[in-house]
Amino acid sequence: MSRIQPRNLSGFMELLPHHQIYFQRMVDLVHQVYQSHGFYPLDTPIIEASEVLLAKGGGETEKQIYRFQKGDHDLSLRFDLTVPLAKYVALHQGDLAFPFRRYQIGKVYRGERAQRGRYREFYQADIDIVGNETLAVANDGLMPVIIAQVFQSMGLENFRIRINNRKILTGFYQLKNLADKSTQIMQIVDKLDKIGREEVEKLLEQEGISQGKELLDFLTLSGTNEEIQTALQDYVGQNETFDTGVAELKEVFACIHTLAPSDTPFCYEIDLTIARGLDYYTGTVYETILQDHPEIGSICSGGRYDNLADYYTNKKLPGVGISIGLTRLFSIMEERGYLNPNMVTAPCHLLLVPMDLEQCLTLATDLLKEHPFLEKRCQIYLEGKKMKQIFAYADKLHIPYVAIIGEEEVKNGTVTLKNMATGQQITGDFRSPDLWFQSQETDPPTYLLPPFCMKTEENN
Amino acid sequence: MSRIQPRNLSGFMELLPHHQIYFQRMVDLVHQVYQSHGFYPLDTPIIEASEVLLAKGGGETEKQIYRFQKGDHDLSLRFDLTVPLAKYVALHQGDLAFPFRRYQIGKVYRGERAQRGRYREFYQADIDIVGNETLAVANDGLMPVIIAQVFQSMGLENFRIRINNRKILTGFYQLKNLADKSTQIMQIVDKLDKIGREEVEKLLEQEGISQGKELLDFLTLSGTNEEIQTALQDYVGQNETFDTGVAELKEVFACIHTLAPSDTPFCYEIDLTIARGLDYYTGTVYETILQDHPEIGSICSGGRYDNLADYYTNKKLPGVGISIGLTRLFSIMEERGYLNPNMVTAPCHLLLVPMDLEQCLTLATDLLKEHPFLEKRCQIYLEGKKMKQIFAYADKLHIPYVAIIGEEEVKNGTVTLKNMATGQQITGDFRSPDLWFQSQETDPPTYLLPPFCMKTEENN
Repeated sequence: MSRIQPRNLSGFMELLPHHQIYFQRMVDLVHQVYQSHGFYPLDTPIIEASEVLLAKGGGETEKQIYRFQKGDHDLSLRFDLTVPLAKYVALHQGDLAFPFRRYQIGKVYRGERAQRGRYREFYQADIDIVGNETLAVANDGLMPVIIAQVFQSMGLENFRIRINNRKILTGFYQLKNLADKSTQIMQIVDKLDKIGREEVEKLLEQEGISQGKELLDFLTLSGTNEEIQTALQDYVGQNETFDTGVAELKEVFACIHTLAPSDTPFCYEIDLTIARGLDYYTGTVYETILQDHPEIGSICSGGRYDNLADYYTNKKLPGVGISIGLTRLFSIMEERGYLNPNMVTAPCHLLLVPMDLEQCLTLATDLLKEHPFLEKRCQIYLEGKKMKQIFAYADKLHIPYVAIIGEEEVKNGTVTLKNMATGQQITGDFRSPDLWFQSQETDPPTYLLPPFCMKTEENN
Repeated sequence: MSRIQPRNLSGFMELLPHHQIYFQRMVDLVHQVYQSHGFYPLDTPIIEASEVLLAKGGGETEKQIYRFQKGDHDLSLRFDLTVPLAKYVALHQGDLAFPFRRYQIGKVYRGERAQRGRYREFYQADIDIVGNETLAVANDGLMPVIIAQVFQSMGLENFRIRINNRKILTGFYQLKNLADKSTQIMQIVDKLDKIGREEVEKLLEQEGISQGKELLDFLTLSGTNEEIQTALQDYVGQNETFDTGVAELKEVFACIHTLAPSDTPFCYEIDLTIARGLDYYTGTVYETILQDHPEIGSICSGGRYDNLADYYTNKKLPGVGISIGLTRLFSIMEERGYLNPNMVTAPCHLLLVPMDLEQCLTLATDLLKEHPFLEKRCQIYLEGKKMKQIFAYADKLHIPYVAIIGEEEVKNGTVTLKNMATGQQITGDFRSPDLWFQSQETDPPTYLLPPFCMKTEENN
């Protein structure tokens, strides 16, 4: 018969079993932290009517969308989890209690030009809090605290959350009569990390912005968070939007300070250069970079929006949210060798081998019934293979223990247990808990990454 | 501004928060059981090259596929999890250890005519065991045991797993010189449940099959599993395929009998009428029906295939697998009111309310640090709303406890705790574990359905 070459599309991640377990662990950790803060899990369709998904319309994203016709329907695959949330809240607003906290971990699709580290199908892990008419600024302070807990639960330490407030930028541009050029300025300033201050000044000049130096002096204000806040005070009193932004920023930092656990500090800082291009952000904005790898760009971003769903409903639904690009983050961890080699990736703890099914399977299942803790993660090996092959199989799967039940064992009511790491093999009464003591499952190591492998001295 | 009406496509399930938590619980239970048997989790792309996904080609399914062009690429959305598994195993065979046990829970897409209880986007939850060249028949016995554990973990009791072996049918048709009509026969016999024996006999006659009565006498052999197996012996010795089928069926039942936990019996039975249309099944086949709702059809089906991936590779990869249609099963449970009203669906256990953020947030976070068990599922309420609104919010979310920290409490180092179910309110030292004792989280009820709500007397 003619055969088709099996393959994956470029930009679509597919992992081998052990790596899949690392990824699964990463997803589980995100779930746990999000859930611990009282967020509802949510799951929306991957396919939506194009009219609904693209209601907001326009922009770079539209070209990247997977859009197609099926029968009479013009359909699109979701390209983020925020638009589906807007639809969800607008559609179900009567059934929801506000503030509505939800998290969603799911695949999204963008037909970007495939390149290293860019995916066309990838997981996002979002949290959002949506208010009805109002939403306290304190929520903006909670977001970085949750995100830090997520990363710390993975063992990731050297991240830095950069925080800004769009109102500060908007107000400042108004103050300097640059309001009509704010989009260009944001786009140019966004290149600061890549091309440096000098080049950015040149580009600003080319755009006819003569106050380049003053602008950059302001945007690159440096120092501790307190020092920057003090410096911002110099500009206060001239523009209402600016003043609101400064006050919000202050409240956000006070809130982070109170909510952040003192025993696991993380790095968060004011960075006036960040703006996040998406035009629905209206207040606080976040970016997260890995200190050792700024070239990767932001691994977690988000912000505050005054009106989540104004293209669906006239109800005012302000919100704040943040999103982790899980697939990309995982590929970075994997590529740079950060995954903890000591994390348990075996699909089970025990391989239970009845040498002859007819004779030994009953004892094998009796054994599981006798010791329920073994049942939790056990594979009964049902193939009639030779011991050498069975051990090779257990080795390849990293299964730590193999229990053998042969003719001898059935006769004597015993079981032979082999520790695959040490090679040690003992035979004992199958009912004795002592025999199993050595193999009792301990919790898999908490850290996806080896503890502190990514910790740097710099963290404050 | 002009607004778009938010809506969902027909055939796409989107749940309200509390129902989402029921669904999530269902998925978690499936995960747990699958994992406990040493299956790897797997995650493959939802989009595949059409050439790869449709390599097997043809059939009813092809019309239902979501297929579209993106740039130069002819793409399709997966319509099941079996073809992606075949691709995965063929593509990565050198990196896998066999028997390869994997589970996958994910969305699949079929553009069926939308109708009640039919979904276009739905979750399947599959397990498969794939061998290299050979795979012991005992694995076919393990499948129903795992599936029964899944359903029992949900609290579902009145299901019945019907088992047959395609070799018995093939052999019998050969024996009766009906081999060339086997497809028509299967299609007609498949209607037995719906139209009854008499009508089926008529249809068979219309197809020119004169042995209708004999055929149906055979296919509807009834009695206990042992009695049917004894009756099958009457036909043994005339056709090799038939004899192999009978021997395999016997081994499968012996294996189920040994592996099934004696304390939680479930109903499994030989049913010679089932064949499962898909032409890749070559041996054991399964169907699962709800005894009280046979009209729903099979909620979990699968079988044995000699060559999983022969359209991708010349390597022989026999396998056995089974699949639960989770979305459909959930919609049935929901519709018939089977979901356990006592299951905890609150997004958190405690709503912690600092009445004034500036004054009370510090005490609130101190409190969480003091009692880490509270931190597991707690929402800090950050809106400056009135108590009445806050209690209404907690009520709507079914949050069992609300802790209030106001001016008084900060002054005295106390906290006021309200049990939302009883209305009881107590104030005490916030450091005292006694205060919190009543609110300690117990595990959420194990059963997705109320225990035994779907149990019937008939179970054997």
